[in-house]
Amino acid sequence: MFQTFDATTSPLQGPPRLAALRALLKQEKLDGYIVPRADAHQGEYVAPCDERLAWLTGFTGSAGFCVVLSDIAGVFIDGRYRVQVKEQVDTKHYTPVHWPETKPGDWIKDHLSEGVIAYDPWLFTKTQVDEIKEALEDTAITLEARAQNLIDSIWEDRPARPMGTVEAYPVELSGQRSPDKREQIAQTLRDAGQKCAILTLPDSICWLLNIRGTDIARNPVVQCFAIIHDDAHVDLFIEAERVAHLGPDPNIAILAPEAFSTSITSCNGPIRVDKATAPQAITDLITKQDGAELIYDEDPCILPKACKNNVEIKGTRTAHLRDAKAVIKFLAWLDAQTPDSFTEIDVVTALEGFRSQTNALRDISFETIAGTGPNGAIVHYRVTNDTNRTVADGDLLLVDSGGQYVDGTTDITRTIAIGTPTHEQQECFTRVLQGMIAISRARFPKGLAGRDLDALARASLWMTGRDYDHGTGHGVGVYLSVHEGPQRLSRISHVPLKPGMILSNEPGYYREGAFGIRIENLIVVQPAPPLGDNRDMLCFETITWVPIDRRLILIELLNADERDWVNAYHAEIREKLDITGPEADWLQQATAPI
Amino acid sequence: MFQTFDATTSPLQGPPRLAALRALLKQEKLDGYIVPRADAHQGEYVAPCDERLAWLTGFTGSAGFCVVLSDIAGVFIDGRYRVQVKEQVDTKHYTPVHWPETKPGDWIKDHLSEGVIAYDPWLFTKTQVDEIKEALEDTAITLEARAQNLIDSIWEDRPARPMGTVEAYPVELSGQRSPDKREQIAQTLRDAGQKCAILTLPDSICWLLNIRGTDIARNPVVQCFAIIHDDAHVDLFIEAERVAHLGPDPNIAILAPEAFSTSITSCNGPIRVDKATAPQAITDLITKQDGAELIYDEDPCILPKACKNNVEIKGTRTAHLRDAKAVIKFLAWLDAQTPDSFTEIDVVTALEGFRSQTNALRDISFETIAGTGPNGAIVHYRVTNDTNRTVADGDLLLVDSGGQYVDGTTDITRTIAIGTPTHEQQECFTRVLQGMIAISRARFPKGLAGRDLDALARASLWMTGRDYDHGTGHGVGVYLSVHEGPQRLSRISHVPLKPGMILSNEPGYYREGAFGIRIENLIVVQPAPPLGDNRDMLCFETITWVPIDRRLILIELLNADERDWVNAYHAEIREKLDITGPEADWLQQATAPI
Repeated sequence: MFQTFDATTSPLQGPPRLAALRALLKQEKLDGYIVPRADAHQGEYVAPCDERLAWLTGFTGSAGFCVVLSDIAGVFIDGRYRVQVKEQVDTKHYTPVHWPETKPGDWIKDHLSEGVIAYDPWLFTKTQVDEIKEALEDTAITLEARAQNLIDSIWEDRPARPMGTVEAYPVELSGQRSPDKREQIAQTLRDAGQKCAILTLPDSICWLLNIRGTDIARNPVVQCFAIIHDDAHVDLFIEAERVAHLGPDPNIAILAPEAFSTSITSCNGPIRVDKATAPQAITDLITKQDGAELIYDEDPCILPKACKNNVEIKGTRTAHLRDAKAVIKFLAWLDAQTPDSFTEIDVVTALEGFRSQTNALRDISFETIAGTGPNGAIVHYRVTNDTNRTVADGDLLLVDSGGQYVDGTTDITRTIAIGTPTHEQQECFTRVLQGMIAISRARFPKGLAGRDLDALARASLWMTGRDYDHGTGHGVGVYLSVHEGPQRLSRISHVPLKPGMILSNEPGYYREGAFGIRIENLIVVQPAPPLGDNRDMLCFETITWVPIDRRLILIELLNADERDWVNAYHAEIREKLDITGPEADWLQQATAPI
Repeated sequence: MFQTFDATTSPLQGPPRLAALRALLKQEKLDGYIVPRADAHQGEYVAPCDERLAWLTGFTGSAGFCVVLSDIAGVFIDGRYRVQVKEQVDTKHYTPVHWPETKPGDWIKDHLSEGVIAYDPWLFTKTQVDEIKEALEDTAITLEARAQNLIDSIWEDRPARPMGTVEAYPVELSGQRSPDKREQIAQTLRDAGQKCAILTLPDSICWLLNIRGTDIARNPVVQCFAIIHDDAHVDLFIEAERVAHLGPDPNIAILAPEAFSTSITSCNGPIRVDKATAPQAITDLITKQDGAELIYDEDPCILPKACKNNVEIKGTRTAHLRDAKAVIKFLAWLDAQTPDSFTEIDVVTALEGFRSQTNALRDISFETIAGTGPNGAIVHYRVTNDTNRTVADGDLLLVDSGGQYVDGTTDITRTIAIGTPTHEQQECFTRVLQGMIAISRARFPKGLAGRDLDALARASLWMTGRDYDHGTGHGVGVYLSVHEGPQRLSRISHVPLKPGMILSNEPGYYREGAFGIRIENLIVVQPAPPLGDNRDMLCFETITWVPIDRRLILIELLNADERDWVNAYHAEIREKLDITGPEADWLQQATAPI
């Protein structure tokens, strides 16, 4: 079982550690310190040794930071974590701060008139540091980078860095040899007149070198740094024993992690650095030396990684068919349960069990969200023993989950009626479904970005004064991160959609204190077949094949095209999946025409 | 009759004038000169004295410019004018250049290795000049501002500047006293720490001072400049005799137009200048003097002018009801004509006649577009005696027109079936109509911009591989310009929609060489009535009340909501308009339920 339900922190752990940090600040003549959730790779998950924010405060959310001053410690959390933070931290010692509504620079100004605030430049991007520095301009407060992390200095039993074995990712799954990828990126650098690029994102490096790892949970990446030069040569900074079994490659130099900083300072420029993802420390290293030109530009692997090749798409399709069978078994199991006789944890456990039975599950792709009744309205809900709720008659049960398989990463949400749903639940569900169908069926001109399509997913909800406060979809990797950029279906995404990009399509609706609805399939951007004026257009291929709960659909709200879509989708599930045994009957009724 | 159909220029006029300009260039030791369509106010229409581009080349389009070098003269025209330019200019002497695909700076580099290109800094914005200068960086070509316009030097019988009388626009129509508007803008300046703003847009000044004029066709504006100071005092640069009858205002100084430049140089800074609309000359004047700080920022009148108050909206509604009666009379007349027996010019003449019969028409708001058959596919078609086409059986006739009334500006497009339409014409029309209805019915969260909604108008066309190559809607003024910013329904518009903004809602479809379809109503952004979760939402109020041709609607393509919208819209037309006489019967059948 990958998922756990025990609290890993306690509000009691924070205060003595906060006192120890403040003692160190005094000793170092500092007036404050900023402790982020992030590690040097800015990913969604971090290794146990990088759980500094949780260690200091008790707060375990996937984003946020703590600004420690001598008399106040602000824990900055976004909308997802307003409730959670109050349960996890001792609010007599820590003050939750609503972020990004309150900016850290402004908050610091409100609580400090002068002094020095330190931070670890490996844990913050240049973009983040710039924002705080700008707010502190014209004040007597300075922000100071400190090479030695102050939390690490006081964290006595801090776990060791992850040292998992690195696994080769074969060309049968990656679809492109690593030397070809390296040459492609080198060409990008030469075209831009750049001598090298610093790579700090683990999934970029894993994609480039066709490797995978086990350093952190949920994302099968290797935590390391790399530099790629314009001659396609790569310096990879990793413990040699972790990659020795892969054999030597004349174009990859294996260097100790400790050599990363000195290698950066000896690079010829122009050096390409992604200021939105690379640590501030890298900028500092480059600008400290004379001569080397630094160019801020996106990590050159991000876009080619996002545009999956045919082999990757084929693998992902296979992974989704495998995953669909497991989820269908789960849904059949669920329908056989008696309402009020099982809990959210039972749901999570059962679902992971069905995925494990595939004998192909490498990991879950994120902690399963199983929220029943009011818990369904908490968008990023994660059940624990403390919050665990009985799945009651009349509830809507929202289950958002995914698997990491060697050939692909899945992510699917279904909302299931427990007992008889109300008419209002059905109407809300149907309007969410209409948005999800609108994206599934969309055909649109090349060059459009997610923001140009987002309204299609919301129009039906908007018409009734409803909406949802999250994007419509995020990018998804191939046996990599379940959240990857740059592609998104969101009003803030200006990156044109390109063939091969995998995205989630997941409109939702949330009634606080009552119920939550989300319906999510993964889709792949594809060239649209010729039609009409033969304009150059794109469309989405759906790759998730699990029935949508017919009991929640108000058929009269759907137009003919939408109804046809549902029936065709359900018919295709029956065709594509070879389901036998007791689940076959369940599938038959779950996919009967509406 | 406002509209004319005679060619106002000839391809023969250009070559001798081009020779004269080149002789002057040689004398002035210049290697080139750029002649734009624009005047110093960057409007869509210019006074006869500012028709320099037409005078030099014969090209009369509403945008473009000519770059004259010693051996080539490029006439830069956008997609609307590809055909027209070839008919209007002598292509042995002038070379049409596709713009903005080809940028002027790049074109100059291709045709000149070194030298000096001059331009009149009053006729180009800083944004335009910057773009060319950037392209010419690292070349031996320089761009030089010349105070004396070279065309004016050789244009012997150049008309005089317009000197029309200035009319007061009463508060009964404007809804806000000018002193209140001036104080509102002054507050904006004070909030931004700016001492004054330079105003160069005639409609901004007319809005601010509650005045209207007759200086140019189609737009009832006064062509003048102004400076508003942070104490709400205004310097207005205009001939005193044009405004004497309005009486003195202690807070408005009337200064001669010639005093504008010296007044700018004596302003205290920071001086606010809109670099997208103000002439480059203004930047030059401010930066030449020491000390005065220049701040580039949008013309401060643009946004408040766009958000119409209740009095302006009420006036505009009245103007639209009046205009609708005229257009309905026209449509009834049109249906009574025998196909093949009348022309596009007959259509334009009849329509303007019905508008004139209201006895309230101050001007048409732009040259009526009446394109039948293939002419309908030319998006900005203007019929002339040379292009005039017989309206034939089986044609679609596209009529896009509007009126300037003292209480409001109208703009409406209807596409009418002449004889029996084909099924394909009906399908295309119905899909355009679905887009138009989607915008009409839309309800959306506050904060969204036109780009967030544009897809709703196109989705139905996209589904069949069709699209249209123009925005979905533009802003409209109140007895001012029929095209005003900043509001737009377009993928390039990032300005949040706000209550009171008037927009056009005009999706279309064009089959080159065959037919054109466009359906256009004007809409007003309004707060949406409470519904659902009571989120803060906006909606559109339709203010155009003219039947949509039922013969072109494929009823089976519409869903129930769309069909209801059409029937409710047509029913409301019958209710709102008191139509008697022969048109009453026509209206009855034209608005019968579908």
